[in-house]
Amino acid sequence: MNVDVDLSPLRESLEAEGIDGYCIDADGSDSDQRYVSGFTAPDPYQTLVTADGVHLLVSGLEYGRAKAESSADSVTRRSAYDYRDLVAEHGPYEAKHRLLAAFLEDHGVDSVAVPRSFPTGTADGLRARGLEITVEPEGIIEGIRATKTEWEIEQIRASQRANEAAMATAESLLATADVEDGVLVSDGEPLTSERVKTEIEITLLRHGCGLDDTIVACGADGADPHDRGSGPLEADELIVIDIFPRDKETGYFADMTRTFARGEPSEEARRRYEVTREAYEAALEAVEAGVTGADVHDAACDVLETAGYETLRSDPSTETGFIHSTGHGVGLDIHEAPSVSPSGGELEAGHVISIEPGLYDPAVGGVRIEDLIVVTEDGYENLTDYRVGLEPTTE
Amino acid sequence: MNVDVDLSPLRESLEAEGIDGYCIDADGSDSDQRYVSGFTAPDPYQTLVTADGVHLLVSGLEYGRAKAESSADSVTRRSAYDYRDLVAEHGPYEAKHRLLAAFLEDHGVDSVAVPRSFPTGTADGLRARGLEITVEPEGIIEGIRATKTEWEIEQIRASQRANEAAMATAESLLATADVEDGVLVSDGEPLTSERVKTEIEITLLRHGCGLDDTIVACGADGADPHDRGSGPLEADELIVIDIFPRDKETGYFADMTRTFARGEPSEEARRRYEVTREAYEAALEAVEAGVTGADVHDAACDVLETAGYETLRSDPSTETGFIHSTGHGVGLDIHEAPSVSPSGGELEAGHVISIEPGLYDPAVGGVRIEDLIVVTEDGYENLTDYRVGLEPTTE
Repeated sequence: MNVDVDLSPLRESLEAEGIDGYCIDADGSDSDQRYVSGFTAPDPYQTLVTADGVHLLVSGLEYGRAKAESSADSVTRRSAYDYRDLVAEHGPYEAKHRLLAAFLEDHGVDSVAVPRSFPTGTADGLRARGLEITVEPEGIIEGIRATKTEWEIEQIRASQRANEAAMATAESLLATADVEDGVLVSDGEPLTSERVKTEIEITLLRHGCGLDDTIVACGADGADPHDRGSGPLEADELIVIDIFPRDKETGYFADMTRTFARGEPSEEARRRYEVTREAYEAALEAVEAGVTGADVHDAACDVLETAGYETLRSDPSTETGFIHSTGHGVGLDIHEAPSVSPSGGELEAGHVISIEPGLYDPAVGGVRIEDLIVVTEDGYENLTDYRVGLEPTTE
Repeated sequence: MNVDVDLSPLRESLEAEGIDGYCIDADGSDSDQRYVSGFTAPDPYQTLVTADGVHLLVSGLEYGRAKAESSADSVTRRSAYDYRDLVAEHGPYEAKHRLLAAFLEDHGVDSVAVPRSFPTGTADGLRARGLEITVEPEGIIEGIRATKTEWEIEQIRASQRANEAAMATAESLLATADVEDGVLVSDGEPLTSERVKTEIEITLLRHGCGLDDTIVACGADGADPHDRGSGPLEADELIVIDIFPRDKETGYFADMTRTFARGEPSEEARRRYEVTREAYEAALEAVEAGVTGADVHDAACDVLETAGYETLRSDPSTETGFIHSTGHGVGLDIHEAPSVSPSGGELEAGHVISIEPGLYDPAVGGVRIEDLIVVTEDGYENLTDYRVGLEPTTE
């Protein structure tokens, strides 16, 4: 359990604004609520942060598990406020407002800060019952989440271990494929992006991870950083493999990208691979607590521009070259704070970030190399243990 | 593409209330937005329904795909409102409000109805810019979604085909396991709930489906309808397998449950299986357009109570017997309208519902039998093609 969560920045903000509590009303897909409460459930539940603790409101169905598993200081079940009677009398929509108002009153809360995503239905319902609802505009919880506890770093490391196994499965498929008529062939069938993705997913499942999506993109597909890839994989072309699994139990993501080529990639493809690798190394070298995400992004751009490629820094309208940020935070969400981009602020020890420069051109294909690291006081610790090399092997 | 979506109930409500448009601001996890726009994306986007059409507001990254794939009448990219300049000048939070206000103004919309889940941050931001925001309390879109188009029924049918393959994988593992010291053993290792779930997931992946969760629950675990199951599967005990996969492309769910036992289940376990089967058949028999979900639920309760078991109808506080509803709608969400429960309203042709009575007692275990069906004018069409039988086979 993530016991070292420090909500003091939130409590200081509440006190400064003269607000009694902070309330989240969401289901298990909301990572802020999962983080604050140490609990997740498929259906909506509510979390209240006050000066004296974290308080959960859950259905009877979830009560036992919330008591046992959550990090909340108190857990209340809906039946404590006669929820069934409220639904029978007022219908489910109005009943929820009355339920939540009673829960807030119980904790002495008249004024509430809520996240930007708080449901307008609930906000308006509580306002109609006399509560003062203020949207917290800064995303304070997101800021707190950016700095990982030791426990969280262990969970992310475990997800990256599963990711390494999945990448090895994919690389091995590429390495052992035959080449027939310019196309990779495995077990007598064309080796497609879809087949490789399925084997990646199966490996992740066997390691307790799931994913919604993964990228295995060959040739021109790989030149669009958001193309997931499809169809037969070709020899002599760059193949970008980007895997971002999530542990099914803990909810923590990992993230890694490697680029491979079978056969004889063009001179220009090889050059781009080497230049991207230099940019990745330069960005890693730049990381330490106190530098900004923008500084790290600049380090990558410097290498790429010096080698003659466009970046969004050298040409904001370019559609080829380095056309995304150098990295992003990873945790309970695959994209979270901090940002390693032109707008990226100061990095702190305990930030977990990806470093993933790339070069893209439909005429050549895409290259991206990505590791996941923890920022430390004097550098970084790499959470990724996976060889960087263009030619796939079975090692 | 789901071309036959009929938004007229929403438009009639807007007209009756004198409201210009209905706006959704959510990401791809919001099934209402996916349904209305025929589009989904990982990051937030906005959908506006007016009297004259459905209008999408998306990032430049999603613009091409939204134009090609969505069912919207118009697609606008954020850059049309100088979004980058807005962010630079006002920050991302305020910029979003200005962006959305400009988009609404472009469509002549001053007053907006929003779903209950609409973000309070966006609602308050738009209100501060003079727009009138009203929460639509009825869940009109959910009501529209309950009646499936022909296209949707085909997608759900396809997901149920994948589900049948997964159930066959699981059943075959049970059927071919050895029994050693009262525990099922496969390939020399105890056959656990976890192993069966992994093989179910792998089969689903190979059929293009994913899932967050599945139930393989043996003995007392199976007597709690929300227990996912864990540990070695035992001979002579009831094993509940409930699979609810989602097609990765279309987003449509399927749902099916079967209960099995190896060895010699107790007399009482066998009796409960037969009674549950009778309740399932009686509930199916009761289904046709015009009857209510409550009627269908009553048909299941009648059988179970006549056989001497408690239901929540005979004893609202019972913790054994039939302790959930008979069924629920299935579509882009695994639980959606209509309800086949004491509060279930009139069923209509085109509703897709599960029929899943069960009996639970920690001393005996759990039984549940579930098919997925489409309501028709004079009965139902079963979307499920899977044998009902307690003894697992490899057929």
